[in-house]
This record gives sequence, C-alpha cells and structure tokens, in this order.
Amino acid sequence: MILNEKDIQALDRIKRLNIINSVSGIKPGNLIGTISNSGQTNLAVFSSVIHLGSNPALLGFIMRPLPDVRRHTYENILENNCYTINHIHINDVQKAHYTSVKFDKNISEFDACNFSEEYIEDFPAPFVKASPLKIGMQFVEEIPIKANGTIMMIGKIKHIIFPDGILSEEGYLDLQQLGSAGISGLNTYYAVKKLASFPYARLHELPDFNSPLE
Amino acid sequence: MILNEKDIQALDRIKRLNIINSVSGIKPGNLIGTISNSGQTNLAVFSSVIHLGSNPALLGFIMRPLPDVRRHTYENILENNCYTINHIHINDVQKAHYTSVKFDKNISEFDACNFSEEYIEDFPAPFVKASPLKIGMQFVEEIPIKANGTIMMIGKIKHIIFPDGILSEEGYLDLQQLGSAGISGLNTYYAVKKLASFPYARLHELPDFNSPLE
Repeated sequence: MILNEKDIQALDRIKRLNIINSVSGIKPGNLIGTISNSGQTNLAVFSSVIHLGSNPALLGFIMRPLPDVRRHTYENILENNCYTINHIHINDVQKAHYTSVKFDKNISEFDACNFSEEYIEDFPAPFVKASPLKIGMQFVEEIPIKANGTIMMIGKIKHIIFPDGILSEEGYLDLQQLGSAGISGLNTYYAVKKLASFPYARLHELPDFNSPLE
Repeated sequence: MILNEKDIQALDRIKRLNIINSVSGIKPGNLIGTISNSGQTNLAVFSSVIHLGSNPALLGFIMRPLPDVRRHTYENILENNCYTINHIHINDVQKAHYTSVKFDKNISEFDACNFSEEYIEDFPAPFVKASPLKIGMQFVEEIPIKANGTIMMIGKIKHIIFPDGILSEEGYLDLQQLGSAGISGLNTYYAVKKLASFPYARLHELPDFNSPLE
C-alpha cells in the first residue's frame, strides 16, 4: 500500500495523527518529572527523548507548540533548570499513559497516577521511584524548529540511576532486563526483546551475509 | 547504582559511549537511503529518527559533526533533496548494522550489505526493497545544535509504503506485525512485542490504578 502526500492530507485528522506518529518506528517510553519553584511537582509521558551526544552527555526531547498541555513541564524546567527522565516500566504503561490527562496545575500527576516521587542528594527535581532507569538532567538550551513551531529541549546528564548488576563490562544496559517500555503512535505500548549484539563494524571483518546469522 | 557527572566523565571513552547511547531507552532502527547526482547510492543505519509533527508530516534525524562517516548521506541529501527512511526488519539486523562500515564513496552499501534497491514513480531516491515500512522524504531544513556541533536534518513525508492489511481503521500500524527492529546503544538490536493500547486520556475516564490492568 502506498500513501502519497495528497492521501495523507486527505485523511481524517485523528487517523493522520495515528499513522504519522507511528511511521518513525519504535519510540522510547519516558516520564519527565519536574517541580515548580513553589514545590508543585509534574509528571508527563514523552516518546520523543533522543540521544544527541556522549561527550558532553546530551539528550533532547520535543515539546509541541506553546501554549499546550505540556506547558507545566516547560515552565518548570525554565524555572528551576533541572528535570528527570525516567524509563517507563512495562508494568506501569497504563499509569504512565494517563499522565497525559489535562490535570489542573495544582494536581501532581505523581499523585493522580499513583507514582511515588524520589529525590537524591541535592538534585532539585523528582525522580519516579518505580522507574528502572532514571536520569537527572540539567537544562542547556531550547531550539525552535521553524518548520512546525515545535521546540527541542536539550539537557545535560547529571545523574544516571539504575539497578546493580544491569551494566555490562562494555557499558551495555539491557533494556529487556530493565523492563523498559517502547511506544508507537500516541497510545500503544510495547515490550522489547533482545535479538543480537554486533561488534563495531569494520571493513576487514565484514560477515558473509549469505550464510546463516553468525 | 548512581553514576554522577564526574563518574561519567571518568569512564573509558568506549564504555561512556555505550552507556550514554543506551540511557534514552529503545531507539527506532532505520536505514536511510540516498543517491548522488551521479547515481551512486548510499545506505546507512540510523537510530535517531524522530517524529516532529503530523501536519505537516515531519521527521527529523541527527547527524554527527562533519566531516564524519555519515557524510555521504548528508551530501546526497543536499544534492538531490530527497531520501528514504526504511524500517529495519528483525531478520535484517546484521546486514543493517554493517552499513556502518566505512566503505569508500564508490561502494554502495546496498551492494556490500546485500540489500536490493527499489524505486517508485518519479521519486529520486532508493528505498530498501526488503523493508517492512518505507518512507519517501523531501528535505526541509537542517538545524545546527550548538551544544555539541551535531545537526538535526528535517524532512517532509512524501510517500509511505507498507504491506496491505497492516493499517487499522483508527490508523494504527502494528510494529510487531511489521517486524520492525529497535536499537539500544550502538550495536544491540531488539524485537518489539505489543503490550496494550489505551484511549486518548481524559480526566473523567481515569482508571482505578489500584485495580488489575483493565
């Protein structure tokens, strides 16, 4: 089946939203935790967290045009400069999904969706206690995307928290063992199952692709 | 286990690369296909394709600082303005991984890694024939990310190609049924398994999170 630009334009809005939100492939399921200067916490599900670089260690995520349902996350990050990114565990996908409800600003999604807050040292943003991998982030810059008015929020990794025994000698973190969920489209959640790891790809080590998987 | 900024800085470079490339969660596995004006095709694995918006339908991906191993993709996109994004099938993860070998510019990764090219209508970039979901893209803009010198390449969706029967009435594309692969870190590939879909989250339909999964 081929959908061309005109077919896509002609689709019902919701159907277009669902298709276009699915075509990039599997997306990481994360909860972003923030707190306002007055102490009001906020938690929101995001599927747009992206690796930008390792040194410095930078992650980005996409915010929709403001004003938007996600504005509490945005306002809190600008207020206190710190936020947390927390993997969604496969057992928590329903609760995570419902953080996207338009709650009033004085309602914390931590309470409304039954997630416990966790704090470490003097880091001023709430982690999700039940999350299998939690990242403490410091805001670096926001980049406006002219093509559609979205914003890429960029931050630097300050802390990474994960269970003992999950990190291999090479630095691999097993997402299946962590139980980290993936997202497709706007509302479908996936588990991940490890298939294979390959070495850094070198020309003189090119496998014979016609033989069975090595 | 907690890794702080200093612990991360002190890690061996390869170990840091592996960890930091893993912490964002599962990443989509895609092959980006391009062709130069002289007709030389190129194919490269990317784990950074990201949904930016549905109307217009925009996707982005991250290029590392130039000059880099990925420069053929970049040069070809600037030359002919079009490129393809192709989901990696779980049976093709090894071949897809080895497109990251530093082949000479006159070697096509389609040939070297045993992928067949496919063309549609008058769209001037090669699709991956074996891919379960293929997207024809038109380049829109590149956005420099000052924080580390990477670039976000943004394009508009012109064509979406996928098997008949895979699109639901609501517009959902089942990634498990497609066999689309995910990536963690630099070299680990995952299959995805559908867990649950939830409706658009409304306040008056909030589930009871203490009862079993509905």
